[in-house]
Amino acid sequence: MDADVIVVGAGVAGLVAADRLVSAGQRVLVLEARDRVGGRTLTMPVPGFDGVVVDQGGQWVGAGQELVYAELSRFGLVTFPQSTGGGSALVVFRGKARRYTGRVPKLDPITLLDIGQAQARFDRLAATVDLAQPWRTPRAEWLDGQTFETWLRKTCWTARGRDFFRTATEAVFATLPANLSLLHALFYAASGTSLETLISTDGGAQQDRVLGGMGRLAERLAASLSGRIELNQPVRSIDQHDDGVTVTTETRSFNAGRVIVAVPPALAGRVVYTPALPAERDQLTQRTPHGGIIKCHAVYAEPFWRADGLSAEAASDTGPVKVAFDASPPDGGPGIILAFLDGPESLRLGALPEAERREAVLRSLTRFVGPRAMEPVAYLERDWNAEEWTRGCYGAHLPPGAWTQVGAALRAPVGRLHFAGTETAERWCGYIDGAISSGVRAATEVLTAAP
Amino acid sequence: MDADVIVVGAGVAGLVAADRLVSAGQRVLVLEARDRVGGRTLTMPVPGFDGVVVDQGGQWVGAGQELVYAELSRFGLVTFPQSTGGGSALVVFRGKARRYTGRVPKLDPITLLDIGQAQARFDRLAATVDLAQPWRTPRAEWLDGQTFETWLRKTCWTARGRDFFRTATEAVFATLPANLSLLHALFYAASGTSLETLISTDGGAQQDRVLGGMGRLAERLAASLSGRIELNQPVRSIDQHDDGVTVTTETRSFNAGRVIVAVPPALAGRVVYTPALPAERDQLTQRTPHGGIIKCHAVYAEPFWRADGLSAEAASDTGPVKVAFDASPPDGGPGIILAFLDGPESLRLGALPEAERREAVLRSLTRFVGPRAMEPVAYLERDWNAEEWTRGCYGAHLPPGAWTQVGAALRAPVGRLHFAGTETAERWCGYIDGAISSGVRAATEVLTAAP
Repeated sequence: MDADVIVVGAGVAGLVAADRLVSAGQRVLVLEARDRVGGRTLTMPVPGFDGVVVDQGGQWVGAGQELVYAELSRFGLVTFPQSTGGGSALVVFRGKARRYTGRVPKLDPITLLDIGQAQARFDRLAATVDLAQPWRTPRAEWLDGQTFETWLRKTCWTARGRDFFRTATEAVFATLPANLSLLHALFYAASGTSLETLISTDGGAQQDRVLGGMGRLAERLAASLSGRIELNQPVRSIDQHDDGVTVTTETRSFNAGRVIVAVPPALAGRVVYTPALPAERDQLTQRTPHGGIIKCHAVYAEPFWRADGLSAEAASDTGPVKVAFDASPPDGGPGIILAFLDGPESLRLGALPEAERREAVLRSLTRFVGPRAMEPVAYLERDWNAEEWTRGCYGAHLPPGAWTQVGAALRAPVGRLHFAGTETAERWCGYIDGAISSGVRAATEVLTAAP
Repeated sequence: MDADVIVVGAGVAGLVAADRLVSAGQRVLVLEARDRVGGRTLTMPVPGFDGVVVDQGGQWVGAGQELVYAELSRFGLVTFPQSTGGGSALVVFRGKARRYTGRVPKLDPITLLDIGQAQARFDRLAATVDLAQPWRTPRAEWLDGQTFETWLRKTCWTARGRDFFRTATEAVFATLPANLSLLHALFYAASGTSLETLISTDGGAQQDRVLGGMGRLAERLAASLSGRIELNQPVRSIDQHDDGVTVTTETRSFNAGRVIVAVPPALAGRVVYTPALPAERDQLTQRTPHGGIIKCHAVYAEPFWRADGLSAEAASDTGPVKVAFDASPPDGGPGIILAFLDGPESLRLGALPEAERREAVLRSLTRFVGPRAMEPVAYLERDWNAEEWTRGCYGAHLPPGAWTQVGAALRAPVGRLHFAGTETAERWCGYIDGAISSGVRAATEVLTAAP
């Protein structure tokens, strides 16, 4: 035996699972496909600015994500508010830019009324979701038989109201409402408290950033697992037999008593299992597609937008950049704007040459902060759709029919195999908090399993 | 170079592609994961009855499937009508069994009126679909943003009408209308002429069977490719480089100038590609889940139902068996009933012990042909969901959003890679005819590609 437990994937979920198992006295081996840990979190230095970093992956921690705050605090990592500059946010809707402060974008009263009534209906439905077993939600088949888009078409009175929710959906799910089961949209929002929480900065999911970058969390976890992580080991096959499990990478084989698969279900489905996994589990992995994200950072000598009273937080109903945030360091230095390309725009722009994509992103930013956006001193981007070991961000979503027909297979162990990853979380599914709870849950499963 | 072209998968699509390439003078190698050819077609002998066979996979050829008739005829294979006994079909709806002959099940007039109006609306929409580029269909986003289930809820006036279409959908797609994009349902029906064609026997997709079994088609194709097929070679990785392509199986590597991947998109997505395939193609393979089928055959000493004036063709709105057909040999001998477990029922019953499943299937058949169904002399079944190299039948379906966002990647070549398989067909997508046309199309792509 190379270990008591092998963990496949050194993202936050896998690292937390390994950490908890080691604390419980287990011998653990983590196998990671990439040459780095962190999975969908990744902090990179900004060229030309010593000590300045950007988060090219998951970066925020927000209200209610107690597990992330606790884990950060354990490693002495410090957070600071996303909203520092104090300027106005911007909404560019129907070609018209309006500044606002507080939580409610400045839109015409009828649109705001429509958004309000639709959000209230959505929240009432979301409150009915069984987070542990979404397929047991009252009227689950009814909710799971339609897309979120269908519900929006039916529920919103105005085209503007619908478009507000479409933009919010792209920002939260990195895919269009057409792709989402209504039950999944409700589950996901309830899992993260509410849709309003998910789209909010202060008091919401985008409340705080981590000094030095969120990538530090995985680095610290990995440091405490020193010697137990093998990088550059993409797992190709997992064989369960009477004595345990053999995990084979491109170059080596490892034996253990149990395995925690801590990669997204769609990628887990690409591993070769012996014996083949049950049909229900395989069908699940066929029904968990990922959203699409290219995360771009434009770096300027200073946060010039602040002099104009702007926060660089912006949203628009047209692309290519529909959502932007200030990503500058909290303590002076360069000004950095974070620009998201999400959903279909990320696929379309991802296929363009780099220079064209950069041009399109910067031009899009001029709508938010003016023409100076065109002249960054540095520009970074990360296309998560093109990353072989992620293949789309922020995470998976379930299309209609999946939760009610094969949802139970999402986190059910199969023999000596256990499944972690934020997609398997009940609370904060899709977020770093969900990754942590899933790792803890999988570790607990292993520790309490019959030998 | 081991070949000019490597074909991955010895189903009908791959074999036809190889056949056309060989005819054009190319050196071809076909790599097949299984120990047999045929893919989703498979003919098996019935134990205890010399020369009697059943088709455990695709079996029918019907009106408009000229490519299948031509291919069968080329190898001297003969067809005979599905409807031989002349008895009445049965519909068991709302617990009540009714006999009927002809194409229209005997239901109450209001339900028939409702089915008629919904079918007319469906046909009018289906006529608008662009089969070559479904994403260019007028109002494509509108159609692709909703499930077929949503459309049924809105369009049918009666619960009975909706349930008729749900049963028909399960029979045709092996999944629930909740899982299907409306655009996909329309495309699929138009691709196979019409929904009525797809559910019909005489004049429809279930019109004729093949003497000796449909499996003979692949066997004959394989015989003509003698020496060019390697069995037991599951392809694990495909590397494109400047000089060509290297295809690596569990045990060997092969080099060729081009590769035709002739397996369903979801399985193609499980191969490791170098360089990694474009994001759009990868996202497509995350959005093409398979339906679910267990195909069961109950064998009796004689087709006893014929004495009761029954054809053994039956449909029901309740399961586990919702659709059955006479599968007896055309020239006397035993009586055989083909029973489908499809969609969620196939997953549910697939997880049961074999004896329990058999009991449930036979008990279900008693509703169609009486208590003698419980006493077969032989019983065969094939769970296509559990087959590692198929993972669900009859084929893939596209959930909402997929056609309009990533549909163009379904058959677009990537460098030296080409894609075949019935899922890529414009006409008879999901049927053997579509497999043949896709093989011809892929072979033509290779032959006309720049060297």
